[in-house]
Amino acid sequence: MPAGHVIFIGAGPGAADLITRRGWAALGRATVVLADALADPALREAAPAARWIDVGKRGFAHTTAQAQINQWLVEHAQAGACVARLKGGDPSIFGRLEEEIEALQAVGIAYEVIPGVSAAQAAAAAIARPLTRRGLGRSVAFSTAMTEQRELRAARRADTEIFYMAGQQLGPLSQQLLHAGWPGETPVCVVSRAGWPDQVVSDHTVATLPEASAAHAGRPAVVLVGTGARPVRAEVPTAIAGHHIDTGTRP
Amino acid sequence: MPAGHVIFIGAGPGAADLITRRGWAALGRATVVLADALADPALREAAPAARWIDVGKRGFAHTTAQAQINQWLVEHAQAGACVARLKGGDPSIFGRLEEEIEALQAVGIAYEVIPGVSAAQAAAAAIARPLTRRGLGRSVAFSTAMTEQRELRAARRADTEIFYMAGQQLGPLSQQLLHAGWPGETPVCVVSRAGWPDQVVSDHTVATLPEASAAHAGRPAVVLVGTGARPVRAEVPTAIAGHHIDTGTRP
Repeated sequence: MPAGHVIFIGAGPGAADLITRRGWAALGRATVVLADALADPALREAAPAARWIDVGKRGFAHTTAQAQINQWLVEHAQAGACVARLKGGDPSIFGRLEEEIEALQAVGIAYEVIPGVSAAQAAAAAIARPLTRRGLGRSVAFSTAMTEQRELRAARRADTEIFYMAGQQLGPLSQQLLHAGWPGETPVCVVSRAGWPDQVVSDHTVATLPEASAAHAGRPAVVLVGTGARPVRAEVPTAIAGHHIDTGTRP
Repeated sequence: MPAGHVIFIGAGPGAADLITRRGWAALGRATVVLADALADPALREAAPAARWIDVGKRGFAHTTAQAQINQWLVEHAQAGACVARLKGGDPSIFGRLEEEIEALQAVGIAYEVIPGVSAAQAAAAAIARPLTRRGLGRSVAFSTAMTEQRELRAARRADTEIFYMAGQQLGPLSQQLLHAGWPGETPVCVVSRAGWPDQVVSDHTVATLPEASAAHAGRPAVVLVGTGARPVRAEVPTAIAGHHIDTGTRP
């Protein structure tokens, strides 16, 4: 990469050890870091000599306007800095990455993107509920329930449907899901602060989802609907998921 | 974790530095590793003292039957091993994780899951094309085009639709996409071996997708359809994506 450039890095869902090794190494080469507030402060250890600039959090509240972030990226790169743009989750999923890339393209600054683990993946791992299931779930969809016009829209797109940034709208989301054709008894799992020590997980159905509001109030949450919301359970010990396992080692 | 247990680890899309730091550290504690063939051999450096067992690749060909993998997981954990089950991509997305969890649950073996970067995310990062775009793409869906019955099924679920394991079926996929209502001129991008030195990227439309077959023959590929397939391009320097950027620093 040329002297002044930008590396977009997915920080992962929060905890500093859920960043990729490539992302961690790139932080170590940065001279300036523009960081989302959702990233773990422990990530600073990867870039002790860099100038670290917090640019607010993703989701509900942008404490720094996008245009300001774009301008800082351009200014620091044009001044010759190796700029790391540290984004919560995966920059390619609800990261507004395209707006920052456009700002760099407009002035001819080089950039690259290092992927990260997105919040839904962290949630699925933390609760050990795969988002796809053989024979039951062949598709998974991620969406923001909230449109740019602050309208709530929920569809029935896939076997597992995941909503980002819906934690403040669980009552209306329940109604929208019913309206979109999800049966009221469909399992729903809400996970806030996935992977952190204060993670909260709660199980509901599409119909009872409004009751989740209190437990997740004010916390970044993902909402899993459908196949992936269901706990994995071995139903019958000797015939698991339709095929037989050699029981020779079993007590 | 108790003495005999299993840690499912997402290896990421291939290159050894796209694993998470947590996954790398967990490999270092493993005494037995059961590894998908898609994982970079360089990952062995993380677990030099572990017994390393290759259990075949995901996708087209399973060189080791799932039941055999399940049995090995159980046997090694019951013998007291710290077993790392290294899976390509993210274990929670098309990883058949549920089948292995069920096998462990049936005999009461403890497990945990460490997420990873999935192939589509690696592809999006490698080509710097975000899967969601503000105002254009509020939803992204991942699916396998191929059903268990080896039938090809493609839908129009989301603004960006991603198909895994469709590289051998690009001609029929084109037909299915048209049938599902995608306009023929919709952008499609095929990325095989995302993030590797021999990565191949090719641009098409839904109608011309069959022409991609030769370039990606025999290679693990993801197919991006719709918003996320389109390159990010700054259209007008002074009005980017509908909002204005302070042009004070621009030449």
